[in-house]
Amino acid sequence: MSIIKVSARSRTASVAGAIAGVVREAGRAEVQAIGAGAVNQSVKAIAIAIGYLAEEDVHLICIPQFAEVIIDDQERTAIKILVEPR
Amino acid sequence: MSIIKVSARSRTASVAGAIAGVVREAGRAEVQAIGAGAVNQSVKAIAIAIGYLAEEDVHLICIPQFAEVIIDDQERTAIKILVEPR
Repeated sequence: MSIIKVSARSRTASVAGAIAGVVREAGRAEVQAIGAGAVNQSVKAIAIAIGYLAEEDVHLICIPQFAEVIIDDQERTAIKILVEPR
Repeated sequence: MSIIKVSARSRTASVAGAIAGVVREAGRAEVQAIGAGAVNQSVKAIAIAIGYLAEEDVHLICIPQFAEVIIDDQERTAIKILVEPR
């Protein structure tokens, strides 16, 4: 499953569309965010994606978890949010 | 159900404890955050609370949504995150 990487400058509608698309194709999506701004955009995008899929009678839930990721040889703590139908 | 209001300065471990306590007592919890810092603390607290309850074999999921709230006579857009067992 491809990971949807979100930044503080990501547009929420675009990310929401990506989440909805990945859930439709793969059954679930994984969103990764580092930092408060990125987490905020991720959560807003998930709220929008929930609305998109609800129209198709698919009811999404999400499960956030901590994840260590390596960026530029440095370990960073990311938030990974799994999004899938209930 | 009481709403757990989270700010950018809330301690994640305290909020996680509150979420776990409310879920144990009421079956579900509602977290409210306004702004990126508050949403970030909320998501981290939920990730911690998921760990707490997993030890009791309770597997939490969350559902974020937008909510309009009135603060000091002004309408603000908040993020409400419903937290409940799967």
